[in-house]
Amino acid sequence: MERIPVLRMGSLLLITIQVDMHDRLAMQLQEDVTQRISEWGSTGVLIDISSLEIVDSFIGRMLANIAAMSKVLGAETVVVGMQPAVAITLVELGMSLPGVRTALSVEAGMEVLYGEIPVGDSGAGDERSQA
Amino acid sequence: MERIPVLRMGSLLLITIQVDMHDRLAMQLQEDVTQRISEWGSTGVLIDISSLEIVDSFIGRMLANIAAMSKVLGAETVVVGMQPAVAITLVELGMSLPGVRTALSVEAGMEVLYGEIPVGDSGAGDERSQA
Repeated sequence: MERIPVLRMGSLLLITIQVDMHDRLAMQLQEDVTQRISEWGSTGVLIDISSLEIVDSFIGRMLANIAAMSKVLGAETVVVGMQPAVAITLVELGMSLPGVRTALSVEAGMEVLYGEIPVGDSGAGDERSQA
Repeated sequence: MERIPVLRMGSLLLITIQVDMHDRLAMQLQEDVTQRISEWGSTGVLIDISSLEIVDSFIGRMLANIAAMSKVLGAETVVVGMQPAVAITLVELGMSLPGVRTALSVEAGMEVLYGEIPVGDSGAGDERSQA
């Protein structure tokens, strides 16, 4: 079965999304991430989307969902590696990825997570209204 | 175009293989890895194959090729996350992944690379005879 690997790096999880997402795969990923966070006590989740040329509302919602679920379990999520064209499209589509923090690269994302300042972001719950 | 992302983590490169490899993708990956090593001066390459359920001679050769190319450029390669069933099949097929070092997880692979002892492994060049 196709499955997106969730890698453990110290207290962080690293996920690279390379394949076309569909419902079952997204559900499986959410399950794996939450499972790993509770199992390994991870405090941060890095999601690399550098190979995605399109981020549609489905992917956007999935990212926001993972961020929201992780947050409930005590882990911050940072989406890294977004292509410039994707950023343009996201804004043009009116999707602002609420509750999801971003960074340019995995390294920058790790800095965000390790040097983390608690954020008062309460937008993680309303991502559905954006899609 | 489909492309396997090569992530930079300090002096290491991290690649997770999730999709079915084919010729063009393998060539692109070899090109990307060698390009990144020379560009970023990376000293190690971690290749995660935890989502692969089958490692055939094509994948085996690709891994050995990347390891050999990286070595020429001064970077060690560690393949991580191999599933137990894959190890069984590899040995049954008579493929020993010459020149490729392995570790159970990304973390173990990083330990291998950071605590690295120069190895006198000269087997990296003869992987073709195995496939």
